Amino acid sequence: MNEFALIERLAPLVHGNASVVAGIGHDCAVVEAGLTGEFLLLKTDATVEGVHFTPETEPERVGHKALARCLSDIAAAAGTPTHALVTLGLPREFDPTRVEGFYRGLNALAARYDVAVVGGETVANPERMLISVAVLGRVPKKQFQLRSGARAGDAIFVTGELGGSILERHLDFEPRLREARWLVEHFDLHAMMDLSDGLAGDIRHLLKASGVGAELRGPAIPVSRAARQRARAALAGPAEWGLEVDTTRPALLAALTDGEDFELLFTVAPSTAVPLLDAWKKQFPAVKLSCIGRITQATSLLIRDRRGLRPLDLHGYSHFQNTGGN
Amino acid sequence: MNEFALIERLAPLVHGNASVVAGIGHDCAVVEAGLTGEFLLLKTDATVEGVHFTPETEPERVGHKALARCLSDIAAAAGTPTHALVTLGLPREFDPTRVEGFYRGLNALAARYDVAVVGGETVANPERMLISVAVLGRVPKKQFQLRSGARAGDAIFVTGELGGSILERHLDFEPRLREARWLVEHFDLHAMMDLSDGLAGDIRHLLKASGVGAELRGPAIPVSRAARQRARAALAGPAEWGLEVDTTRPALLAALTDGEDFELLFTVAPSTAVPLLDAWKKQFPAVKLSCIGRITQATSLLIRDRRGLRPLDLHGYSHFQNTGGN
Repeated sequence: MNEFALIERLAPLVHGNASVVAGIGHDCAVVEAGLTGEFLLLKTDATVEGVHFTPETEPERVGHKALARCLSDIAAAAGTPTHALVTLGLPREFDPTRVEGFYRGLNALAARYDVAVVGGETVANPERMLISVAVLGRVPKKQFQLRSGARAGDAIFVTGELGGSILERHLDFEPRLREARWLVEHFDLHAMMDLSDGLAGDIRHLLKASGVGAELRGPAIPVSRAARQRARAALAGPAEWGLEVDTTRPALLAALTDGEDFELLFTVAPSTAVPLLDAWKKQFPAVKLSCIGRITQATSLLIRDRRGLRPLDLHGYSHFQNTGGN
Repeated sequence: MNEFALIERLAPLVHGNASVVAGIGHDCAVVEAGLTGEFLLLKTDATVEGVHFTPETEPERVGHKALARCLSDIAAAAGTPTHALVTLGLPREFDPTRVEGFYRGLNALAARYDVAVVGGETVANPERMLISVAVLGRVPKKQFQLRSGARAGDAIFVTGELGGSILERHLDFEPRLREARWLVEHFDLHAMMDLSDGLAGDIRHLLKASGVGAELRGPAIPVSRAARQRARAALAGPAEWGLEVDTTRPALLAALTDGEDFELLFTVAPSTAVPLLDAWKKQFPAVKLSCIGRITQATSLLIRDRRGLRPLDLHGYSHFQNTGGN
């Protein structure tokens, strides 16, 4: 049973009340807490040794990542993070220097966004380090973003470049907090989420929540240098042997299915697309913004490339790749 | 290095700002979030298989305990919990029925106090189940309680009975939320905390934070039936052999040093003690309330029993017991 199936099974068991604007199944929880004009946001995420980092990873980068993952979800809701709680699961014989390094990395990021770290709990987790971070944030009621507002005809945008995060970026990425706030302050977004499990899988959650489909344009999907690098490494063998290889396809596959991009995916009315792109280039010249397709009334997920329009499989590009020749 | 030493080492590394009323080192964090007349409370706590429960523990009780531990800290601040986030670390091959049972237990408690469960995250923790719960709460600014307000002369109170929690109660205890709210609504408390690591150790945190000491009355400390039961079991051997044993001392030792009592410890002005006891008996006839001693200007921690007044060791009654004959 995967995470999504488990959450679907558990969601009906869970106590809710009228204060919950958005609960389980969203990037972060949105609650009415009696603040004038604002909602509170709540998010928790855990980072585990051997899963999200290795025993060799510099502890500063682990601390950065542990907090950055939560902040990326706050960004997805267009919120501002304010406070964080950190629970550290530690083997009995831990290295205090490593724990200090972890806190230095987490804290540098917290200070950059003025997130006060207000609780530090440690607990025994004998086999491996585990970090669970909970973040409190806030967002103006008029600006908060969910995954469920996409409409047929919307232009679909993605920030940055996708794929190959595992090579480096997953430990150092900067959560798109400033970009998300700027977006909602200047444009009318319809839906937003952050990409953590790969575009091909993640976009389905947004489409399902909005009751729509999408048509992506393959060549418009921003493929990262790391994704190309991985593709080249994987293909070096066959190329040397004189085999004909399509070097663009595996890199695109990585961009569609690699996890931990932590980029923003959002939709706007088609008339907003061009002014938004123009304004973005002036505001964030160093951050790519790509219009990768459009929302459709039909609930299917399709991708168009030079061979035509075809369904994008649940597992990303892999199944598509296998059946593409049919 | 123990938890307290680690926290002392890490606390200076941590980013804070003016919104933090109380941060690391308190039962729960208290923050100014712009709510009229109220502070927000934040608390996180983790419950680990093999540490806080066993693979054989009924999952409903694990779920209850995981949330109840956080709620006990919210109670210590005299707050009302409102929302919870749950992070579940699970081995790859987990039993979904067990996870459902866990959620049922957690949820029954959440519903009883109208705590909305707004986020459910799962993550791989290959060797053991680990649950990290984060709770948001609120408290009127005029009523919130810290550990740091105890004054010389104050009467020291403890709810319930202490010791032997490991036999049963640690899985089923009811957080003292109603009692704490009633206390601050009717009386002027000076300091409050909850007992999680044993009275003898925990009270030191309150005394240190308040810059005072205390004199406890040994016979007034409420010893639980479970603590006596454990003492009898431990002493059955020597008693049968015809040795003279003091059966009160080991049970008192358990009451002073056993963890996971999750009772409230608080102080009030001496003039408040008698009216408070009278009103409590009417309001909570089923819950014991004991005046166990008084706060002193001298910063030592002493205990008085029929042999006289002696220091209570950092590790509880154990060292006292060893040196008591000198």
